[in-house]
Amino acid sequence: MSFFKAKDTKILAREGFVIVGLSWILMSLFGAIPFMISKEISNFFDAFFEMASGFTTTGSTILSFEAIDSMSKSMLFWRSFSHWIGGMGILVFILAFIPESKDGTTVHILRAESTGPSVGKLVSKMQVTSRILYLIYMGLSIIMLITLLVLPDKKMGLFDSIITMFGTAGTGGFSNHGASIGYYAACSQYTVAVFMILFGINFSVYYLLLIGHAKEAFKNEEVIWYLALIILATTAIFFNIKNMYGTLEEAFRHSLFQTASIISTTGFSTVNYGLWPALSLVILMFLTLIGSCAGSTAGGIKASRFAIITKQTFVEIEKMISPRKVKNIRLNFKPLDEATIRSVRSFLITYFIILITGTILISIYNPNFPNLDPLTALSSSLTCLSNVGPGMGQVGPAYNFNNYSYFSKMILSLEMIMGRLELFPILLLFNPKTWKKRI
Amino acid sequence: MSFFKAKDTKILAREGFVIVGLSWILMSLFGAIPFMISKEISNFFDAFFEMASGFTTTGSTILSFEAIDSMSKSMLFWRSFSHWIGGMGILVFILAFIPESKDGTTVHILRAESTGPSVGKLVSKMQVTSRILYLIYMGLSIIMLITLLVLPDKKMGLFDSIITMFGTAGTGGFSNHGASIGYYAACSQYTVAVFMILFGINFSVYYLLLIGHAKEAFKNEEVIWYLALIILATTAIFFNIKNMYGTLEEAFRHSLFQTASIISTTGFSTVNYGLWPALSLVILMFLTLIGSCAGSTAGGIKASRFAIITKQTFVEIEKMISPRKVKNIRLNFKPLDEATIRSVRSFLITYFIILITGTILISIYNPNFPNLDPLTALSSSLTCLSNVGPGMGQVGPAYNFNNYSYFSKMILSLEMIMGRLELFPILLLFNPKTWKKRI
Repeated sequence: MSFFKAKDTKILAREGFVIVGLSWILMSLFGAIPFMISKEISNFFDAFFEMASGFTTTGSTILSFEAIDSMSKSMLFWRSFSHWIGGMGILVFILAFIPESKDGTTVHILRAESTGPSVGKLVSKMQVTSRILYLIYMGLSIIMLITLLVLPDKKMGLFDSIITMFGTAGTGGFSNHGASIGYYAACSQYTVAVFMILFGINFSVYYLLLIGHAKEAFKNEEVIWYLALIILATTAIFFNIKNMYGTLEEAFRHSLFQTASIISTTGFSTVNYGLWPALSLVILMFLTLIGSCAGSTAGGIKASRFAIITKQTFVEIEKMISPRKVKNIRLNFKPLDEATIRSVRSFLITYFIILITGTILISIYNPNFPNLDPLTALSSSLTCLSNVGPGMGQVGPAYNFNNYSYFSKMILSLEMIMGRLELFPILLLFNPKTWKKRI
Repeated sequence: MSFFKAKDTKILAREGFVIVGLSWILMSLFGAIPFMISKEISNFFDAFFEMASGFTTTGSTILSFEAIDSMSKSMLFWRSFSHWIGGMGILVFILAFIPESKDGTTVHILRAESTGPSVGKLVSKMQVTSRILYLIYMGLSIIMLITLLVLPDKKMGLFDSIITMFGTAGTGGFSNHGASIGYYAACSQYTVAVFMILFGINFSVYYLLLIGHAKEAFKNEEVIWYLALIILATTAIFFNIKNMYGTLEEAFRHSLFQTASIISTTGFSTVNYGLWPALSLVILMFLTLIGSCAGSTAGGIKASRFAIITKQTFVEIEKMISPRKVKNIRLNFKPLDEATIRSVRSFLITYFIILITGTILISIYNPNFPNLDPLTALSSSLTCLSNVGPGMGQVGPAYNFNNYSYFSKMILSLEMIMGRLELFPILLLFNPKTWKKRI
């Protein structure tokens, strides 16, 4: 795969970003070929959308429940395998490319976040670190696979376990059943929920645990925010839906599973949560925006950015009272510099601009989607940008993205790749100056 | 009115903000009394919501079409008069309070925006300027009233003209008819549309025109962005809805009217645009967020902040290519300093945080609104925060806010006041440090 090569040579930030941006588009293009040859998804744009969704670990699909249930095993495998590859690819990307850019916006946040293995600049060290990350990724994947196989769930055979593991590890969300994880027994649902949460945690935490630095690992503030959000959201949703299900256990299971699925940006479902009351849906939309930890396989703006923004907002309000008081905010018990805070704000605002632009663009032309509504459009744009998968309304867990026009599907695919690469590599591709000769 | 007094004494920023914040809450409380005495809105929370909506020039109502059509003239007058007072109040607020705070977030943007009469610090100059602003406000109101009376529209009598003028001048949107401006003839609709646009323009532009500095007036970049947005949105919506109406003129009229109504944050309607296709609705939601010019009676984040954010985002992308290049963005042909840009970003992010928090809070408890959906909740929070009035879904132009619980109505009222005062005065009231003794 072409994007693996780039880390061996020293390259400028600009070229690094361009190579990564183009690689992900090319990967989706090539990945679409098997679908078109097998004619299981015969249209190019549909196949591209599906593979962009696969590699970016989004999990939005253009396939109906029936189409998924009747798809061949080889194509189902390829579709889900792309999640696993994509999840690994983003780990390489994080380590191999971002630290190369000295003034890039993303590098500051990464530096600020990495409590553990400091994001190395030496090629040798980077390679070591990325090898360790690979091992953690594979190790967690194998543990999950074995757990699923051992569980007393007759429906969860070897093939289903592998597919489910691929979708969970990459935080993707493609399933080989229309009913997603709702197809399996409760014990499998709990297992998947726990592993979704685990794959949303910064991998450096596992690294620190492995080398025995448990104390340092638990000092990771982002993980605390992430887990606190999960507990809060699960509780709120549980009380909101507890009368909708036969037992409290079932209501709790769906609350936990859906919270874990959305915040980890996986997108599996155990139930059609599109029918839940507004509070639950609003919370899930909010979690779609946030996503989980930086340095994981998940998408979204990341818990650490959310933490920084929340803290900074309180500081701003305090500044209104005592303008002369200088107060610095801290993350991981270290003060954050102005540059980091600035880059986080810039990231967040760019995120919103892309979200809104995407929403408008995908609403323009959809001849086969006459009843498209604003909630569906907004949540389609958000779910693709955050790499979650299902959205609200007519792209909820009981629906798919097939009604959109090819134009809209291309925009959504681009949003997935933008979200996956933390915005800038793809934005650069659209800037004419990127293509000028280096002076 | 208590808040008029404050400008005579020199006060600290903190106290200034607190006084303003509390004044607007008190005004809404006192304003609610006539409704409760007349028993036309007998419940306290409903009356408070309606008056907060009036004074903040939002125009969201808890009254059904039938309730509006059967309301007494005196109460209709009071309801709409609050818009006119509120619109004037915000002009005072802009001049009297914000410049007092040296490190406040809002002052930078105001300074950056005011091409014309520089926001004076001397009490004497400020009083002169605010007197001029009053005169412009009254002058424009009278011109509009006369135009409406002169028009060949039999339905637009003196009372209706006054009510419509109040709603337009304050960019409020309360009408004395359930059908809003759709009740009147096309010529009145065009007139209201034009005046809504005029009241959304920075008042300093009129001041400069009056004193003969036409050249300087046309240099106001914010107004150019504002008018460009109106032209773009009207065109897009026109092509989106042109087959829904009998004539192209009618489609154009509704496109122009709704665009003007939403971007000026007035909230009048000529038609139930809730039935329009997704593209139009998404555009209208976007305009709800933006609002019109700073220094006008309108709400929203303001066109200048939108312009700054858009420009800055392009600069960030360029920085990714050439990290060492320093590029400053300009507004009104003058370079903007880092502090202004920072304060704009901070404002925008705080806006989004309040928007999302409000959406979650108003979704929690609504026993009479079992079918509340996420779009309705999100757009309720947005339309109140931006002081527009109607939202989408079940708070669209054909509906009202009465289904919400008292708790949700209080949250929405607070959002209106926050949006009106540009967030910080009300946020300060919730900060315990505000209430500490000055050291």
